[in-house]
Amino acid sequence: MPDMMKALIQLQDGYSNTQTGPTVDDLSPYLAYQDHPVPTPGDGQALIKVHLASVNPSDIHFIKGEYGQPRIKGMPAGFEAVGEVVAGDTPLIGQRVSCYARGSGTWAEYALADISGLIPCRPDLAEPDAAGQLVNPLTAIAMFDLVKDSGADSFILNAAGSQLGKFLIALGRDQGIKPIAVVRRAAQAQVLRDLGAAEVIVTGDGNGLNQAKSILKTLKPLILLDAVGDQFTADLFFAMPKYARWVNYGKLSTEPPQLTQLGQLIFQHKVIEGFWLTQWMQHVAPERIAAAFGEIQERFVSGKWTTDVAGITPLSEAMDKLPALLEQPDGKAFIDPRK
Amino acid sequence: MPDMMKALIQLQDGYSNTQTGPTVDDLSPYLAYQDHPVPTPGDGQALIKVHLASVNPSDIHFIKGEYGQPRIKGMPAGFEAVGEVVAGDTPLIGQRVSCYARGSGTWAEYALADISGLIPCRPDLAEPDAAGQLVNPLTAIAMFDLVKDSGADSFILNAAGSQLGKFLIALGRDQGIKPIAVVRRAAQAQVLRDLGAAEVIVTGDGNGLNQAKSILKTLKPLILLDAVGDQFTADLFFAMPKYARWVNYGKLSTEPPQLTQLGQLIFQHKVIEGFWLTQWMQHVAPERIAAAFGEIQERFVSGKWTTDVAGITPLSEAMDKLPALLEQPDGKAFIDPRK
Repeated sequence: MPDMMKALIQLQDGYSNTQTGPTVDDLSPYLAYQDHPVPTPGDGQALIKVHLASVNPSDIHFIKGEYGQPRIKGMPAGFEAVGEVVAGDTPLIGQRVSCYARGSGTWAEYALADISGLIPCRPDLAEPDAAGQLVNPLTAIAMFDLVKDSGADSFILNAAGSQLGKFLIALGRDQGIKPIAVVRRAAQAQVLRDLGAAEVIVTGDGNGLNQAKSILKTLKPLILLDAVGDQFTADLFFAMPKYARWVNYGKLSTEPPQLTQLGQLIFQHKVIEGFWLTQWMQHVAPERIAAAFGEIQERFVSGKWTTDVAGITPLSEAMDKLPALLEQPDGKAFIDPRK
Repeated sequence: MPDMMKALIQLQDGYSNTQTGPTVDDLSPYLAYQDHPVPTPGDGQALIKVHLASVNPSDIHFIKGEYGQPRIKGMPAGFEAVGEVVAGDTPLIGQRVSCYARGSGTWAEYALADISGLIPCRPDLAEPDAAGQLVNPLTAIAMFDLVKDSGADSFILNAAGSQLGKFLIALGRDQGIKPIAVVRRAAQAQVLRDLGAAEVIVTGDGNGLNQAKSILKTLKPLILLDAVGDQFTADLFFAMPKYARWVNYGKLSTEPPQLTQLGQLIFQHKVIEGFWLTQWMQHVAPERIAAAFGEIQERFVSGKWTTDVAGITPLSEAMDKLPALLEQPDGKAFIDPRK
C-alpha cells in the first residue's frame, strides 16, 4: 500500500448558505488536485481502491456547501464509487464493491467507507453501473415505494431526462404505473416516450402548464417527485388531485416557489415534504435495502436500466474536464482515478 | 312548528376562486335576511331550534366561496350553534345540544344537523360556550394532539390572540408544553403572557423575526400551528429545528409565502401540511371525539377556557352589525335568532 495518493481535495469548510444549484463552471474555488495521505480505516471501516467514481448532483451541491452535511477542508470529495476492498476487518477484502464514502471521499485513488454499507457487485455488472448503483438507483427504488403506496396508477416527475428520472420512468413502465415526465426541452420528449413515459410535459414552451392540467385531470397522479423546486413545480402540485404529495429531493432551480394555493393543504389534504436517501437508509428495514440491491443489479444486467455515460475523465484531468461533462444534457460523468 | 322562519340566506353558489381572507366589510353580496321554509330533517338528521349561533373565520371564508365546500345558493349560512332538538329520530328530542349544520345552516331560527354529530350540553355550560364548542375547541384539542405527539416541550402558534389561539395557549399552560405566541400587535402581548404564553413574538415591530430565531433556538418547538399563511410564517418555519412541521389551518393573510429554504424539507426532514377539522373527524376514532367533548365542557365550566364574547347580534340586525363585531380585536361574534 502506498503512503500517498492523488485526490480532489476540498478547499472549503462547512456550509456556504447559498442556493446556486448543482452546476459549476469552475471547480477551482472548491477543489484542488493534490497529493494526500492514503487514509487509514477506523473501526467498522474499509479502505477501497477506487476503480471508478461517479459524479452526482449531490456531489456538486456538497462541494459548494449546499448539501445536508458540512464540507471538511482538506478531505477528498466524492460520495460514490466502485472499487476493490483492500483493507479493513471484513471478509470482503479483495472483492469488488460499490461504496458510499464516509470521511475520505471517492474522487481519489483510495476512499473510506463503512463496512456495513459495502455492496458486493455481481461479476456481470458493468463498471459504470457499479460506480453509480447507490445514489440514483437506490433513490429511485425508495421513491418509487412512495409511488406504489399512493395507490394511483400514475405519478409525475420532473428533471425526467436525468439519470434518476430515467430510472424512475423505467420502474413505472415495468410495474404498470404511468410516468408523467416533465422536462425543459422538447428535444428530450421522444427519448422519454420511447423509454416508457405515458406523457411528456415540456416546461420550455409556454403552454406547459395548461397541457399539464389536462393530463393531471385524466391520469390523477398523487406523487410529484421533484428535483427542480421552481414555480412551475408548485403550480403542478396545485393542479394535482386531492391527497397529492409534493416530494422534493433536489433543487435544480434557484427560484423560490410561492405557495399560491395554501388552502389546498387544508381542504385537499395535500402535503409538501422532502426525500433524502441518507435519512431513508437510517429508518428503513435493512432487508429492504438488501432486496433493493438485488433488484438494482438485476435491472442493470438485464438491460431494464441503462447507465448513460456522458464521459469518463481521468482524475488528473477532472478539474478541467468535469464542468464540461456536467453540461452534457444526457448522461452521467465519472472519474477514473487509475488514469 | 311554524312553516316559515327568518334566516341569512346565501346569494352565491359554489366557489369564488378568490383568496381574500376571513374579513368582510359588507355582507350584502353574499347574504340576505329573508323568510325561508323551516327545513325538514332527512334520514339521520335532526331539526334544531337555534338558541345562539357562532360566527367563525370559516363561516366568512365559506360565504365568500373560499372554504373547502361549495356554497349553495338559497340555503341559510352558518356552521355552528347551540339549540334544542325539536324533530328527528333521536332520543335527544327536547334536549339542549351543540350542533354543526348539514344542509341548512345555523344563522336561522331552525337548522339541520346530523344526529350522529349532536353534542348534548351539560346544564352548567354557558350558552356562548355551548354555541362555540365544536369548531374552535375541537380544533384546539385535535391540533394539540399533534403538539403532544411531537415530543417537544414547546410549540409555536400565530394569530395567538384569536379565540382558538387562546384555547391552545391554555392547553399548553395546563399540560406543561410552553406556548410561543405570535401576534401582530404589541398590545396583545400582556394578555397572552397572563394566559400562559411562555414567549410572545410581535410581527408588527421590525425585529420580530430576529426575536423569534433566538426563542426558537432555545425552546426548539417542532409544531407550528398557522392560521395566517404569510411570509413571516414561512420564515419562522425555516428558523425552526430539524423535523419541524408547519401545520396550516387558516389563511388570514392574502400573501403567498415563498419557500426560500426548500432544501430543509430534504435535509432537515421538515414537512408542510394542513389541518381541517372536517377531515380529522372523518378519520379519528369516535371515542377520541367523545372524550374531547367531555374535556371541552369540563374546561369551560371550570374556567380553564373562557369564551370571549365580542358581541351578540340579533339575527334581524346581523346584516348590519356583524361586520363591525368581526373587527373587534378580541372575542367572538354570535347571532341570536330568537331576537
